[in-house]
Amino acid sequence: MTLARGATIGIVGGGQLGRMLAIAAARLGFRTCVLDPAENCPAAQTCNEHIAAAYDDMTALAQLARRCDAITYEFENIALGAARWLEKNAVLRPGATALETAQDRLIEKTFLNANGIPTVGFRDVADAASLADALAAFGGRGILKTRRLGYDGKGQIRFRGAAGDPSPEEALGEIGHAPAILEAFAPFEGEISVIVTRGGDGTTVCYEPARNVHAEGILSTSTVPAGIAEPVGEQAVRTAAKLADALSYVGTLGLELFVMADGTLRANEFAPRVHNSGHWTEAACAVSQFEQHIRAVAGWPLGAPDRHSDCVMENLIGDDIGRMPELARAPNVVLHDYGKAESRPGRKMGHFTRLRPRLG
Amino acid sequence: MTLARGATIGIVGGGQLGRMLAIAAARLGFRTCVLDPAENCPAAQTCNEHIAAAYDDMTALAQLARRCDAITYEFENIALGAARWLEKNAVLRPGATALETAQDRLIEKTFLNANGIPTVGFRDVADAASLADALAAFGGRGILKTRRLGYDGKGQIRFRGAAGDPSPEEALGEIGHAPAILEAFAPFEGEISVIVTRGGDGTTVCYEPARNVHAEGILSTSTVPAGIAEPVGEQAVRTAAKLADALSYVGTLGLELFVMADGTLRANEFAPRVHNSGHWTEAACAVSQFEQHIRAVAGWPLGAPDRHSDCVMENLIGDDIGRMPELARAPNVVLHDYGKAESRPGRKMGHFTRLRPRLG
Repeated sequence: MTLARGATIGIVGGGQLGRMLAIAAARLGFRTCVLDPAENCPAAQTCNEHIAAAYDDMTALAQLARRCDAITYEFENIALGAARWLEKNAVLRPGATALETAQDRLIEKTFLNANGIPTVGFRDVADAASLADALAAFGGRGILKTRRLGYDGKGQIRFRGAAGDPSPEEALGEIGHAPAILEAFAPFEGEISVIVTRGGDGTTVCYEPARNVHAEGILSTSTVPAGIAEPVGEQAVRTAAKLADALSYVGTLGLELFVMADGTLRANEFAPRVHNSGHWTEAACAVSQFEQHIRAVAGWPLGAPDRHSDCVMENLIGDDIGRMPELARAPNVVLHDYGKAESRPGRKMGHFTRLRPRLG
Repeated sequence: MTLARGATIGIVGGGQLGRMLAIAAARLGFRTCVLDPAENCPAAQTCNEHIAAAYDDMTALAQLARRCDAITYEFENIALGAARWLEKNAVLRPGATALETAQDRLIEKTFLNANGIPTVGFRDVADAASLADALAAFGGRGILKTRRLGYDGKGQIRFRGAAGDPSPEEALGEIGHAPAILEAFAPFEGEISVIVTRGGDGTTVCYEPARNVHAEGILSTSTVPAGIAEPVGEQAVRTAAKLADALSYVGTLGLELFVMADGTLRANEFAPRVHNSGHWTEAACAVSQFEQHIRAVAGWPLGAPDRHSDCVMENLIGDDIGRMPELARAPNVVLHDYGKAESRPGRKMGHFTRLRPRLG
């Protein structure tokens, strides 16, 4: 199915990703309708229509299905029931299966391994006994993560294999006894990510990997080129394309990978949506990850992922947004303020990308 | 005056220029309110608020003045009375004087010459007798243009100094006896334009000149670099900056110049707004003409006009918009569909910019 110009694309979620998707959709001649409970959500400014209702409000979902020729989402924590309903009553791209896989770390990692994509070691943690077993298997060290709803370092507890570590009971208490997994520490040298888009015809297009640096569990910078050996980059790109194929995915997804000392890769996690570590594409490529996603949703041909510049994308977190006027003075900086009224510690308020002439 | 993030910028006119201004404003963290009578105008999609009313509707103008921290415009044919009212009752950038100067070809060309900026020869045409005199002075050749409201070749009549030319009476009848000027033919080798932005502090920033090609009176392509000798480009940039200074201008303006065989320049006309021949900046620069304009309106520092790529911008006129799916397959093409529902011959429906690596 190919959308004609003037068709309406629905976007579930009106944060900064929805905002950038809506701008990309507008540039391709599509109208947009955003579902987000917040009256002043970032995407409200750049869409044609905003339905201000909860993500599981059936009246709102029905409205969205009626008004839109295709529907997509900007975040992976939509209730699966709502996604399944949209899939049945409208055109949902990507489908609900990608959501289901990404929403649960256990299912996600199992799926990756089943498709020949290595991850770091992990164990299912159902209770204190299974956590104790898992810790024993990993030498007392690892990261306890809730299976669902964790992001940006939230809902995670570290075991360092040292005095001061919580007991299994304490740790499970801290995460509210939610179902969890224990991940082995990965002695990685760095983290990269690949943004891949898969079209309805099964074509995949991958951007070059970016090297990511996090601070306090939140992405801080993404740098391209990533400074990795060419075969490592090629392997990363093949892995992302393989994942998109395995999910029969339609749209853009972000795959985070650890680069080990020996140059091998371990998948960390993927997000079934446009991804923060792909914001650089908006500044350094003719076709951004956002446009690429809209193209896939609309059944358009995908664009070439060519990059005209080297670049570093940096997030503006909380009060960092106050750096904008100073950043505005620097040459070759592409700015983006998400228009969020309230700045809170840890809240992503904007980003900027510094362009540099390509070296080769 | 510097606008704080979250401040509201009003835009009079909601066409494609207003649309791109609204996107640029959003990216810098500003809210936007567009005044345009058309319910489905291109900017309605990308602004926070749309006042659908006539440009001289006093209630609407008062609403705009009340809601906006600063107001700008995307087209030069706003009634001067409305602009003067906004200037008095709100912050209007650029001011009404730039509009007044640009709205009337006679005033515009007189102003340019008075500020040491050469134009092609021209004569005031008040009636058939003055038109006959002017034609005699220009060897029977020239272009009759209405003083006001002409654009994209509308309201223009050519005299070729040959059989088939209309009589002065016939020509004036065709333009409804509107006040007019006769312009001498300029034996130019090409047309270039310079996009210049002037900040509230008097700083000017000029983009590199683009070479423009028209078809049937409408801009067809803008190419950068323009393929002119360096001193010619430097002269063009100095001229644009001089014009912006002479107008005490705040914002972006586009100056069209003819390049003569001897390398000298003649100003054709200027537009006190972002300009079609500057759309390439959106694709080839970190800071576009739209962002530059919003920065000036907001009292921000202007950005560097650096260009990361060579490029050609091409307009999609009328049914050309049907080329979008084909253009989407080409690498290094940045697309923009203005979202206009109805395609008409001569109507600007979108544009695209083809990027090429910089040669030097």
